[in-house]
Formats: sequence, C-alpha cells, structure tokens
Amino acid sequence: MTDKLNKALDFAHENKDRFIAEMGELIAIPSISASPKYAGDIQKAAEWLQAKLESLDFENVQIMPTDGLPVVFGEYMKAGNDAPTMLVYGHYDVQPADPFDLWESEPFEASIRGDALYARGSSDMKGQVIASLAAIEAVMSAGNVPLNIKFLLEGEEETGSPTLGDFIENNKELFAADFALNPDAGMMSSVQPTITYALRGLAYFQIDVSGPSHDLHSGFFGGVVRNPANELAQLIAGMHDDNGHITLPGFYDSVRELDDEEREALAKLPQDDAFYKDQTGVSDLWGEKGYSSNERATARPTLDVNGMLSGYIGDGAKTVLPSNAMAKISCRLVADQDPYQVLEQMRAYFEANAHPSLKWEVRLISEAVASISERNSKEVQAMKKALETIWGVDSLYKREGGTIPVVGYMQEKLGIESVLTGFGLPEDRIHSPNERLHLPTWEKGIDALIHFIYNLSK
Amino acid sequence: MTDKLNKALDFAHENKDRFIAEMGELIAIPSISASPKYAGDIQKAAEWLQAKLESLDFENVQIMPTDGLPVVFGEYMKAGNDAPTMLVYGHYDVQPADPFDLWESEPFEASIRGDALYARGSSDMKGQVIASLAAIEAVMSAGNVPLNIKFLLEGEEETGSPTLGDFIENNKELFAADFALNPDAGMMSSVQPTITYALRGLAYFQIDVSGPSHDLHSGFFGGVVRNPANELAQLIAGMHDDNGHITLPGFYDSVRELDDEEREALAKLPQDDAFYKDQTGVSDLWGEKGYSSNERATARPTLDVNGMLSGYIGDGAKTVLPSNAMAKISCRLVADQDPYQVLEQMRAYFEANAHPSLKWEVRLISEAVASISERNSKEVQAMKKALETIWGVDSLYKREGGTIPVVGYMQEKLGIESVLTGFGLPEDRIHSPNERLHLPTWEKGIDALIHFIYNLSK
Repeated sequence: MTDKLNKALDFAHENKDRFIAEMGELIAIPSISASPKYAGDIQKAAEWLQAKLESLDFENVQIMPTDGLPVVFGEYMKAGNDAPTMLVYGHYDVQPADPFDLWESEPFEASIRGDALYARGSSDMKGQVIASLAAIEAVMSAGNVPLNIKFLLEGEEETGSPTLGDFIENNKELFAADFALNPDAGMMSSVQPTITYALRGLAYFQIDVSGPSHDLHSGFFGGVVRNPANELAQLIAGMHDDNGHITLPGFYDSVRELDDEEREALAKLPQDDAFYKDQTGVSDLWGEKGYSSNERATARPTLDVNGMLSGYIGDGAKTVLPSNAMAKISCRLVADQDPYQVLEQMRAYFEANAHPSLKWEVRLISEAVASISERNSKEVQAMKKALETIWGVDSLYKREGGTIPVVGYMQEKLGIESVLTGFGLPEDRIHSPNERLHLPTWEKGIDALIHFIYNLSK
Repeated sequence: MTDKLNKALDFAHENKDRFIAEMGELIAIPSISASPKYAGDIQKAAEWLQAKLESLDFENVQIMPTDGLPVVFGEYMKAGNDAPTMLVYGHYDVQPADPFDLWESEPFEASIRGDALYARGSSDMKGQVIASLAAIEAVMSAGNVPLNIKFLLEGEEETGSPTLGDFIENNKELFAADFALNPDAGMMSSVQPTITYALRGLAYFQIDVSGPSHDLHSGFFGGVVRNPANELAQLIAGMHDDNGHITLPGFYDSVRELDDEEREALAKLPQDDAFYKDQTGVSDLWGEKGYSSNERATARPTLDVNGMLSGYIGDGAKTVLPSNAMAKISCRLVADQDPYQVLEQMRAYFEANAHPSLKWEVRLISEAVASISERNSKEVQAMKKALETIWGVDSLYKREGGTIPVVGYMQEKLGIESVLTGFGLPEDRIHSPNERLHLPTWEKGIDALIHFIYNLSK
C-alpha cells in the first residue's frame, strides 16, 4: 500500500502544473448560475467536466437534466462489491463577478500572483473540484483503486440548490454510496486543518401582513386603523424574549443539545468573542443566554430578519399608511429540527398573536435540514488522520453555522453522512472581488485527499 | 350693501362660462411640482395667474422666487387702513397624472361630463383658486370693495410646501393681514357645507439603525450579533402600549385636550366607525382607547410607520443579516405640540431603549405645526353664515386629520388664523385618475365667497 501511496503522491506532484492549467480552463468558463444569461456557460462547464471524467476511466458519464441546471455524473465501480463507495460532491457554478472594477485581474482568467491564484471560483469551488479530480487521477495512476467512486457535480449551489433535493430523491439508486466526500467546507487557516462535522439547516420564510384594502393617507386615517408595518414590527419583536431565546412555541423541542465533550472540543476553536467582534465590526455581541458565541453561531438555532419592506422607502417624506408589510425571516436550524415543523410553529405564532382582522401569509420559501456526522466514524477518522499526516498538527472539529443543502439531502435522501473538508481559507474572499486560492494549501489538500483514500482501505 | 351684493352675485352668474373657460386655461398647463421636468409649466401657470391678478386691478403683482418653486403675489389695498386685510391662499401646482391609462379623458384638458368637470387639478385646487378670483372679480365689479386683499399662490403644496415656511418668515410684512382665506379644504357633501377649524401637524422622521460594519452571512453570524432589523422592529413595537397610547415620554404633555362642547359638535359628524371601516376596507378599527374614531383621526396625535426597509427585499431567499435598517415614522400632531419637541422625545426614546452598541440616527425630515382656529371668530362666523345662506342648512364644524403646512405657517409666522373652506367633495378623486369638480357645488361656492366678503364688512 505504501508503494501505491507514494506513487500516487509523486504523480500528483509531477502533474501539479497540469492540474493548475486545467483549473484555469474550468475557471475561464463563466458558469454563473444566478442569471439565465449564462446558461450556455453552465452547459460548457458541465461538458468540460464530462470530458474530464471520461478521460479518467469513469463510466456512465452523463450530463443529467434536472428541473434546474444540469448535474454531471460519472462512476468508477471497478473496486468491486466489497469495496466501499464514495460519492464525491462538487459544484461547478460560481457567483457573479460584479463589481468588476474592484478586481485587480480579469475575474475569469486565472492569475497567479505570489502564492495565490486569483479568479472567480478559484476557492469556491472549482479549485476544490480540481483537487478531488487530481487526487483520484493520482490514485488511479498508481493502480488498484481501493474504492468505488461516484461524482455528483451540480450547477446551482450558488442559488441554494433549489432542485437538487428532488433530483437526488428521484435518482437514489444511481447515487447510492457509503459516504460522501464534500470538499466545499474550508480550513480555519493554512496551518490548521479542520473537519466540519455539522452544518445548520434553514427555514426561510416570506411573511406578508396586510390590513387596509389600499394604501391610506396617514393624515386621514392615522389613529383609526391597525398599521400593518407597526403590527409586523410588533410580531417580529415578540419572536425573541429578553434572554435571546426564540419564543415560537415548540421551537426548541427537537433541538439536539450539545453534550459536555462536544462543548469542550468546540471551546478549543479560536472563534471566541474577540473573533466575532472583529469579523462583524460590532462592539458588543448578542445572543441566547447560556451559550458561547461559537456555540450560538454554529450549534444553536436562530431567527433573523433578512429583509423588511413596507410603504414608502424613497427619498423624503410620503405620508402613506401602508396597506401591507413584508418580512423575510429565516431560522438557522440544528439537528434534529424539521423546517416544515418550524413552518407550523411560525404559523401557529401568527395565529395566536396577529390580530384577527389582519390578513397574513407565512410561506416557507427555502429550507434545508441541518446535518451532523458522527465524529468517530471510519471516514471522518480517515480524513482526520490524512490531514494530520500532511499538516503535522491535530485537526480540529468544528461546526459550521451555514447551510450546505446537499449535505442535508444526502443525509435525508441517501442515508449517508458527508466528510466535510476543503482547502479554502477564510481570507479567500469567496463571493467577493479578487477571490483567490492559496496554492500551497491547495497542493497539500491534494496530498491529503490521496492519503484519505488509502486510509479508508486500511 | 344688498345692492352691491346682488350686483356681484349677478356678475358671477353672468360670467360663469368665462370662469369655467379660465379654469380650463389654467388646467391645460401641467404644473406638476413633483418633477423638475415640469419647471417650465410651473412658470407658465405662475405667469397665467400674474396676468389674471394684473387684469383685476391688483397691484404690486409679482412672481417671487423662493428656495423652491415661485410664489405669485398681488395686493389690492384700496379699501384703506381701516378695512381688514384678507390674505387669500391657493396653490397652482398639481399632482402627477399617472397612471394615464385609467383616465377617461385627457388629464390636462377640462372635460365636462354630466355636472362635473374632469381634469387633474380641477378640484385640488385650480378650481378653488378660480372660484376665489371669480368671487373677488364679482365684488370688484360691484364697486367699493370692503376689504384689502392679498394673494399668496404657491407652487409646491403637492410636495409638502418645503420652502414656504421660510419664505413667509422672510416676507412677513408683505403678507401681513388680519386673517387668511384658505379654500383648500373641502365640503363633506354637496348638500352639507363644512368649516374646517383644525388641522393636524406633522413630525416625520427618518430613522436609521445600524450594527455590523457590513452585511453579514446569517449562517456564519446569526445568533451572535444584534440584527438591526430585529432591533428596529422591537423599538417600533415599544412605541405604543396595549391601549394604543404612544409611549414616547412626554408625548402627550402639551396636547390640547378636547372639551365637552367640542366633542359634542364632532359627534354630530357622519364620520363614525362604519364610515372609517368603509373607507379603509378593514373589519376592525384600532386606536387610542377613550376616543371616538373621528376624534382619533382628527383631534388626537398618532404615530405610524410610513415606510420600512432592511436587507434583501427581492424575490426568493437571500440569507443576509443586514447591517442596517431604516424606518420612516411620522406623528400627526395636534395643537399645541411642537414637532421639534417630538424630535427630542423620539431621540430620548432611542437613547433610553436602543442598545448602546447600535448606531442610530433620528432625523426630522418634514414637519408642520398643527393649527386651530377660534370657531367664534368674526371671520369664521362670517363664513358660516355665508355657507348657510347659500346651502340653506347648518354648516358643520370639523377637524381635519391631515396637514396643510401653510395654515400652520400663517399661524406661526404671521400670527393669523385661517378660514378653511372649499368646494371640493370627498368623491372628487383628488390625486387619482379622473379627478373631477362638481360644478353646481363650485358655483354655489363662488356665491358663498361673495356673501362671505360682504358679511365681513357688516
């Protein structure tokens, strides 16, 4: 086994420049999922990946239509029925690049400056997709691949993977695997490898409240009718108590609580109060009493207004008494909360607290279940060991406060856990101008993935 | 006197068609104050009025520049020092006419259908300006005008008269008068003459609250930082108590309370709960406990959200934790509240209730003092008698919930009260497509104004 490992590592090192060149080819396709304008580029990026998988001995390679943007699939099943099957996830779509004038080089042209490669999608996540392909190519080049491997590469992650859940549900057999590898989570720093073992879920609501049949003149009717904007403000205010707890009845009933061991592990992370103040620019943190800031940001559910609109928002003074008010409100969820149950709780809250003369509508417009992986699973341990071999330090376990919908879908629809890693860094400016990929970290990442594959077969 | 009165009334009746034709000329100038695009038409309308005043023996007629749109002035001072001086107010600007496709005839072309004249500005208030000019021309034609008369015709009423207060302050001597006639208030119905003796004032705030230095990802930071939108909602919610009272400390301290006699008079008005429900389309009214709906809408101060904006308001779900939130909030004020004092109360409320780590700004962006006229004054009684002579029924006293800034300015800067009347009807659709003027009411109005002038000199 060590022979093969070394052969694979050598292959990876020897072909590094080619991998970087391939990353440049994929980056050059502006596969932006946010606008239908780029549908042609989405297709081109999918075709590039199709060709790449075909060149690597993958079979059954196909660009699969979905209700949204296509999924690229390929499988390598030659390791046999006794070998485990790994489902590698990636997304080939990227965020829009604007504002363009803030870029120091062309966003869709890989530009290496210092030890980083600058381009849209370099870190999130074309570079991570290329790293996975590179590691697998290296392992294949050494012969006797110890795993079956499937690829699921989606094209709409940056728009929230709206159709992926149903697509996976409808293709359960094709995607059947023992675990997933998801390199869309990052590292804490270039010297601190990290395994993300939990992600929060999401229940995102659009809430509309209306009262009068039309906008009214506040001079004529102010003082006589319930103002939907005032009422919505009151309803929002009532969703938290003074201790930062969410007051929707039943909201915490199914929340999986942190145990002492986990809290101890999380306490080792460098994300302390000073970190959160520094990242957000606030002088004072806020949140649920009884939990550390990192716990609140990653392991506890939340409720935040994401948007609010009512009446007149232009310049100056318009004395309208608005007929309706809208809020976008989302809850970050933790295991084992169910977004649809939270929808019922939100509706029950409105039922109980909105005045009966108001019309209101609570719609769940985006949802994802939280996900959590067993930290002691064979796969997580294999990754931990691989990272520690390459970086020479203990790998830290962390929870992520955000949502990667596919992780929940794989847990929910395929019954598999994801090993969440990745070689992006906090300073990579993903989604912003001058996105970059730290090449030394990325190269170590390829090596770590190679170790991971062999660790699994030990 | 009766001879002159009859002569003047005859003159008005004989010249009715010419007055309507003049109204048509003024209406044909789209003097919209809301957009600088119509500055030329504003000027044209001012020139039309200048020419008209000059033709009527007014002196010192001029188009006066202001910090905003021009004021037309003219004076007739031949009644001598012993005669009272009446300052006639009017505005020659109009609301925009869109949406155009809802108009049944051209908005800027007077179209008579049935007993109404349809056009933008017909009721609000070019028709009322023409009625005032017509009545004065009729009185002049009869000889020995018993009053001195000044005209103040402004061009920015529809944008809230933003510069008129300072302009009056700076031209106090020119506008000095014993009372004002303001025909910009309407009648309750074509058979029910009305004198409006009180208007509410206004303190319109723009409130900005901010927390984080930039918009945050709600996944990464939800649960850790104060969300400015949630916080603003809470602050808004705290501005009322459960009885509909406004909680800003000191808010009611200077409010002039209704006395029993006035409440009795107001109770005679047809604006009951059913009226307000019908006008607003709500099934249940709201407001300050202890006051009737008409009292709440006209004689009590209010606090309403007029606009609210934060974060993401487009389609779909964007998981932003917004760095700031904005609300436009206005208070309708009653005599003797001071908008600047309310500004201090609002700021004190934020000082006391906003978390010290939030940045906030409370700006007063529009203000007007409430106004109230002595119902037993000689001028109000002269108008009451004139209306009753023409309509043959008791005239009702009412308060208006809206604000006409000029009435407050004249009270504040010139120390004079306004006789508020006018011959527009609730069904005239002012500010809406198919604005109209009920011609029989308008004709009676001219007669009533003639009676008013002679009543004053009795």
